[in-house]
Amino acid sequence: MKPARLGRRFVVSALSVLPALHVLPWRASAQAQATDPLPSWNNGRAKQSILDFVAAVTREGSADFVQPSERVATFDNDGTLWVEQPMYTQLAFALDRVVKLAPEHPEWKGTQPFKAAIEGDMKTLAESGERGMLELVLATHADMTTAQFEKIVTDWLATAQHPRFRRPYTKLVYQPMLEVLDYLHANQFQTFIVSGGGIEFMRPWTERVYGVPPERVVGTSIKTKFEMRDGRPELFRLAQVNFIDDKAGKPVGINEHIGRRPIAAFGNSDGDLEMLQWTTLAGDRRRLGLIVHHTDAEREYAYDRHSHVGKLDRALDAAAQNRWTVVSMKEDWNEIFPLAVRPLGIGGSSR
Amino acid sequence: MKPARLGRRFVVSALSVLPALHVLPWRASAQAQATDPLPSWNNGRAKQSILDFVAAVTREGSADFVQPSERVATFDNDGTLWVEQPMYTQLAFALDRVVKLAPEHPEWKGTQPFKAAIEGDMKTLAESGERGMLELVLATHADMTTAQFEKIVTDWLATAQHPRFRRPYTKLVYQPMLEVLDYLHANQFQTFIVSGGGIEFMRPWTERVYGVPPERVVGTSIKTKFEMRDGRPELFRLAQVNFIDDKAGKPVGINEHIGRRPIAAFGNSDGDLEMLQWTTLAGDRRRLGLIVHHTDAEREYAYDRHSHVGKLDRALDAAAQNRWTVVSMKEDWNEIFPLAVRPLGIGGSSR
Repeated sequence: MKPARLGRRFVVSALSVLPALHVLPWRASAQAQATDPLPSWNNGRAKQSILDFVAAVTREGSADFVQPSERVATFDNDGTLWVEQPMYTQLAFALDRVVKLAPEHPEWKGTQPFKAAIEGDMKTLAESGERGMLELVLATHADMTTAQFEKIVTDWLATAQHPRFRRPYTKLVYQPMLEVLDYLHANQFQTFIVSGGGIEFMRPWTERVYGVPPERVVGTSIKTKFEMRDGRPELFRLAQVNFIDDKAGKPVGINEHIGRRPIAAFGNSDGDLEMLQWTTLAGDRRRLGLIVHHTDAEREYAYDRHSHVGKLDRALDAAAQNRWTVVSMKEDWNEIFPLAVRPLGIGGSSR
Repeated sequence: MKPARLGRRFVVSALSVLPALHVLPWRASAQAQATDPLPSWNNGRAKQSILDFVAAVTREGSADFVQPSERVATFDNDGTLWVEQPMYTQLAFALDRVVKLAPEHPEWKGTQPFKAAIEGDMKTLAESGERGMLELVLATHADMTTAQFEKIVTDWLATAQHPRFRRPYTKLVYQPMLEVLDYLHANQFQTFIVSGGGIEFMRPWTERVYGVPPERVVGTSIKTKFEMRDGRPELFRLAQVNFIDDKAGKPVGINEHIGRRPIAAFGNSDGDLEMLQWTTLAGDRRRLGLIVHHTDAEREYAYDRHSHVGKLDRALDAAAQNRWTVVSMKEDWNEIFPLAVRPLGIGGSSR
């Protein structure tokens, strides 16, 4: 145990007896306030667990010290770094693609789940489940080069808007998590995104939005094929699944891409359970597991054990058992989105 | 065209008329000599092509300037960074594993290619081809955890010796290529290994030997499976091929792992042809392709179009056509291995 950490804990504990003074250590000096690396986080156990962990693994001489090269942290994307309700952004993209491509595919009008996608019949779409989603993705994300797909994604994200917040999806990333990413980067962490979403759907924008470059994005992929065509080297995207980077696939994807066990992992759903287990339960050194719990229906969404998107059930039980940090968006975050984006009709003056 | 580059080329060209003076620009001052980043490279077109390329892409304001984040260079491993004759190091490892595991597999005595491996019958082994090699690898590299495999590889490399040079394999890396890696790292390149060899066979030692960390190693892989066993998270290696990172697989592996097109690629065989095409033929900016040609039977090996290991035939033709740099080990390298390791019986005083 490190004296510095005990000290800070002691202060927090002692202050809980003196509620009127509990903001003191954070406001003690203008300097301390100015250098708070996580200003959108309310003081509390969740924020403190992040600060304590980073302090411990970066303090030379500490028993928990970790060399910079081994400071690997992995982040789920949907629901952990950006909004995943009312549907995964990539599904919204696929639905728009189906509508756009429909004239070239008259057969879709009589085939599910394409018919439902064209008609905006969300109930039938939901019933088609993961298999239906996969069909939509394969039909709309393949039969083109990797360069063409990158352009389609970039163009779509430049104009598409979230149905509730009426903002581009890349503006619906979580400000507190951006602060965690920045804080880890400042402390010589390598951060990776490890998402069930498509690897090539994320890479065109993760560096600009999160500061995470393409080589540090791990995700679900379809197969590609190299060909020289008219003297030009091209990679063609095939309508075949290559790898599903979700659930038990996440540790596999982490090992394949990174080749090191992370020392910290951030998720929000049962899809992240195995990543959190792989990261935190090796029993060899201090690690951080963190789950973002969506508890704020007003500013974002509230969902967990019974949600069709981002279901958080087994991982919530495991969090209690394994002492993973559980972040309540409502209690722990004083801002949700950058620039105080608020849903239309709530809070009013968001434009 | 950059004045500095033209200037240097002009000097080299003018000096070719004055052979007695041709070392002058490199010995002009003690400082220039001390700062030569590639001292094991003889002056000549190969060395100059590397220096010119790095100068061009790192000079701000140059038309060829590339942002550090996009300075990605990929290196084949076998025959490009370390010795691949008389057989791939990983095959030597697999053969040793077969001998070690044979008592647990009495059936191997009557089954090829295992029988040949146990008896050291290299002719039969060679005849079993790639399929035979794959069988040996799957039988000896799987049915264990990733952590167990890492230990087996590390232990083997600590004691195994190359049959001709009588040195550990990790001492049979090419000194001139180590200098290229260092030179690129000093110029803010991210270097990746992109090898047909096993990704998990390389990762335990590439950081120590090449300065290339595990997350920047791309290679052939078998499938793994995540399981919680006795409360511990484990990845089990399965006897199933996941991905072959060779030939047309190399651009696929590069795209999957890196998500950017390299600006430089280094190889030595037809297995690297597609990586060199993918890297250099996009037609959008200046790129470097380089092939190490094994021309030095005395200090290393001489082989190309008719070799069973590291065959260099189509890629040699493509090099001429595409202006890739072709390095003659005999002519261009004044040292082959670090610490002047020499084959036993040649050169004498290597111990």
